[in-house]
Amino acid sequence: MKTRAAVAFEAKKPLEIVELDLEGPKAGEVLVEIMATGICHTDAYTLDGLDSEGKFPSVLGHEGAGIVREVGAGVTSVAPDDHVIPLYTPECRQCKSCLSGKTNLCTAIRSTQGQGLMPDGTSRMSYKGEAIYHYMGCSTFSNFIVVPEIAVAKIRTDAPFNTSCYIGCGVTTGVGAVTNTAKVEPGSNVIVFGLGGIGLNVLQGARMVGADKIIGVDINDDREEWGKRFGMTHFVNPKKIKGDIVEHLVALTDGGADYTFDCTGNTDVMRQALEACHRGWGESIIIGVAEAGKEISTRPFQLVTGRVWKGTAFGGARGRTDVPKIVDWYVNGKIEIDPMITHTLSLEEINKGFDLMHAGESIRSVVVF
Amino acid sequence: MKTRAAVAFEAKKPLEIVELDLEGPKAGEVLVEIMATGICHTDAYTLDGLDSEGKFPSVLGHEGAGIVREVGAGVTSVAPDDHVIPLYTPECRQCKSCLSGKTNLCTAIRSTQGQGLMPDGTSRMSYKGEAIYHYMGCSTFSNFIVVPEIAVAKIRTDAPFNTSCYIGCGVTTGVGAVTNTAKVEPGSNVIVFGLGGIGLNVLQGARMVGADKIIGVDINDDREEWGKRFGMTHFVNPKKIKGDIVEHLVALTDGGADYTFDCTGNTDVMRQALEACHRGWGESIIIGVAEAGKEISTRPFQLVTGRVWKGTAFGGARGRTDVPKIVDWYVNGKIEIDPMITHTLSLEEINKGFDLMHAGESIRSVVVF
Repeated sequence: MKTRAAVAFEAKKPLEIVELDLEGPKAGEVLVEIMATGICHTDAYTLDGLDSEGKFPSVLGHEGAGIVREVGAGVTSVAPDDHVIPLYTPECRQCKSCLSGKTNLCTAIRSTQGQGLMPDGTSRMSYKGEAIYHYMGCSTFSNFIVVPEIAVAKIRTDAPFNTSCYIGCGVTTGVGAVTNTAKVEPGSNVIVFGLGGIGLNVLQGARMVGADKIIGVDINDDREEWGKRFGMTHFVNPKKIKGDIVEHLVALTDGGADYTFDCTGNTDVMRQALEACHRGWGESIIIGVAEAGKEISTRPFQLVTGRVWKGTAFGGARGRTDVPKIVDWYVNGKIEIDPMITHTLSLEEINKGFDLMHAGESIRSVVVF
Repeated sequence: MKTRAAVAFEAKKPLEIVELDLEGPKAGEVLVEIMATGICHTDAYTLDGLDSEGKFPSVLGHEGAGIVREVGAGVTSVAPDDHVIPLYTPECRQCKSCLSGKTNLCTAIRSTQGQGLMPDGTSRMSYKGEAIYHYMGCSTFSNFIVVPEIAVAKIRTDAPFNTSCYIGCGVTTGVGAVTNTAKVEPGSNVIVFGLGGIGLNVLQGARMVGADKIIGVDINDDREEWGKRFGMTHFVNPKKIKGDIVEHLVALTDGGADYTFDCTGNTDVMRQALEACHRGWGESIIIGVAEAGKEISTRPFQLVTGRVWKGTAFGGARGRTDVPKIVDWYVNGKIEIDPMITHTLSLEEINKGFDLMHAGESIRSVVVF
């Protein structure tokens, strides 16, 4: 079949909208019609050539929502007409990682996914006879995609596609970091560093679970209003306080926060986030992706006196199990998404979405097919 | 009253055995006759002048066991003739830290303890009219000591003093890191870096809770026999393997350990310990105390892919609650201490104990009064 898609033919070039050839689903695979997809920093990171493992030509995009249109042999967990969110972190429920019960980082198809291929080692997409690589096991910048059954979460049919697609990455990453990774308890004091899309979702996750002080930290004052909209109780601009930011935050939280979250990707900020934790029990969660080669550091005394340093990927969410719950939370009004979708674009406008993101003018741009 | 004690009149000098004047216990304090005390690296660290906050003249020692001889006004939890272990980490059960239920790092008397004083801001010890500082709230190198009621753990009376004193620091630090901080589950794979006294206690903690592979890592081959005696199943000498030690350990544990423990104090080893953890869930616990100014580093990717970096002090044990349990484990044969006590000395021989430790010839030297 044919599918309209935005193709990244090479790094650092705009995406091109073309018609691709798409093979149907093989055994264990499903064909999904993507109805909407967000544009995430990770797509830009790859398109900008910063990901040393990035493959071209490829179809980027990993934050989509759509409808199952066809299933391959042996597929039992979804059927045509099911609404789904594709999962860049699949959930096979059979590998050592899934069975550990301690992580969401399923390893069933990790090696082929990293190579831009389906689990059988081939691509389903081609253009003028040349194979096009899959991306993060999703490639949601295509109107139709083929993905493994273990890489789709079945969701309720009353969730709008053009907002719930954001649950495919950003919402789950931020909210899940609170609920799955940190397991923030009611009454906790929380500090969120960096109030972009992820940071806002951490804020609303903290609000949902009943955190007490929810402090947002950003060097951009414009983010204060955004933060307040999603549950932030205190805003701190590090450029506007006197003295050390860590000392300031420790004082503001009576000894340090119970949980801190880095959503900046800046390794110096990651250190501040750890050191702003309460002695004895404070936990700091790294969400942001750091520049290649950058390292985090601290004095071991920080850990010996009880602080814990963690990270999270996809909010610690098991895709097929936890993503449908987050969709429920959205539809039931426990979390908000609509105000975060600042721009809705057609596929032809997708490069504008990247421009808006680079300019810091969007929280989330969504392409609707 | 008078008490015989080994006094550190100044840094980098041998201790001197003298008779001190000791004031009796004030309200909330107890007089303890120390029956035995271990000599720990931390005592040597202070005596060697490496602790910038070390106070002199002082009576060092923080790993003792003894008998309550007198109690001050208002003391209700212990009485004369009770056997006790003095606690350098007290447990007031009333401060924010104790009430959090998340840490053993009681803060009730932290500031005065750090200054070498009792909670009322004075010392009970003097020599020729000059005040002598307390040390770590214990000063177990004195035959009699006065300590706050919240800083003694009442233990069973059938536990021998000259072995159970080791529970006052080393045993609890190592075993507790396994049981309280890491909460190692049966069947886990564990790696212990550094097989000194603390490392051996981590090994036997891991054995007690039913760990599967228990791997010991040390650059000294002589430690292999010691490790095996306390539950180690595999020994690795980093100097004798080809290639990278982290890769070697990851292969040996089929993807990395569930729990690793640094008992070396070397920040490079701390990094290895983190990176030898299993992707998705491995936790690394820092026990060793690093040199002043040294920092730990790693790529944030290590945490984002699910490894957790923690530390522990006094094995995460709440002194009055958990230390008596560890004494039970010892008396009931769940853990061993006797073979670790390699040297038993009189107070007059205490400097020899430091020499043995510096020469690496002892696991633990104990002074018996």
